[in-house]
Amino acid sequence: MKYCSECGSQVRLGIPVGDERERHICDACGVIHYHNPKVIAGCIPVWGERVLLCRRAIEPRLGLWTLPAGFMETGENLPQAAQREAREEANVEVEIEALYNLFSLPHISQVYVFFRASMIEERFFPGYESLETRLFSEEEIPWDELAFETVRRSLAYFFADRSKGEFILRMEDVPPLRR
Amino acid sequence: MKYCSECGSQVRLGIPVGDERERHICDACGVIHYHNPKVIAGCIPVWGERVLLCRRAIEPRLGLWTLPAGFMETGENLPQAAQREAREEANVEVEIEALYNLFSLPHISQVYVFFRASMIEERFFPGYESLETRLFSEEEIPWDELAFETVRRSLAYFFADRSKGEFILRMEDVPPLRR
Repeated sequence: MKYCSECGSQVRLGIPVGDERERHICDACGVIHYHNPKVIAGCIPVWGERVLLCRRAIEPRLGLWTLPAGFMETGENLPQAAQREAREEANVEVEIEALYNLFSLPHISQVYVFFRASMIEERFFPGYESLETRLFSEEEIPWDELAFETVRRSLAYFFADRSKGEFILRMEDVPPLRR
Repeated sequence: MKYCSECGSQVRLGIPVGDERERHICDACGVIHYHNPKVIAGCIPVWGERVLLCRRAIEPRLGLWTLPAGFMETGENLPQAAQREAREEANVEVEIEALYNLFSLPHISQVYVFFRASMIEERFFPGYESLETRLFSEEEIPWDELAFETVRRSLAYFFADRSKGEFILRMEDVPPLRR
């Protein structure tokens, strides 16, 4: 941030009174600009024994496989955001079943919220952000071609929990992935 | 938002290619500005049979009682954010025990994440944003002087669950409160 989004003047970095962190401060109009982590909502769409993945048509990680997920928008609740992303990326209608993973990614200031979901019907096709959408059994999952560590963990937990017959909500940090 | 925070030019509202929502677009430098929901992290600090509340020294709801909670900051994970808020508002050190409530407030684009927490010692005093900090037993909770519906629900669930001997994670929407 270089300019005040309210008045267009240049901002400076400084610690406001009563605060402990540097913020972008506009001395011209007095506004303090806060920057906060973003929420990414997504789901594991399940059809029978298989789960639906999308191959990314956009950067980052173009060409790799992901679960439908994306930035929560203003005016949504968490399940709505996950449903919308499934619709946008895979043109699939899902029923949200349960909260499943809550990942903090402090190094990029993101919070991931993954749900387990069931597909309403076996109908899906790539949205604008996907090259390909496909159902995968556990054996078919392209583990070496997954786009994000959050996706890899969600899928690994999902199949491990499913084989044990009990799904466990997990909350954990996901550090940067070394490739 | 009226001006581009990157170049200072005036922005316009428009729907970018491949998008379905209006965004603030800067035609001068090409940046699209996204606005997303914010995360509020907080906890229920428990000491024995009692919970710690803070009386707000700031607007909104100045003078009313709240649980320590506030906007998650960049670079934090969820439990760290809740711990920091407890420290800032009540100068209390807590151990985060479990995720407890996940509230969506779509009308103000906020996501509340409340944890159950235990106080490390019986030591606390008002921070900059608090007029007063105090331990309350269930019978003493000032139900008519609570600052937020999210706080009322968290406390009501907490005492109900505690009396049953089992804490249940809840995810729900919190609509605007009619007063």
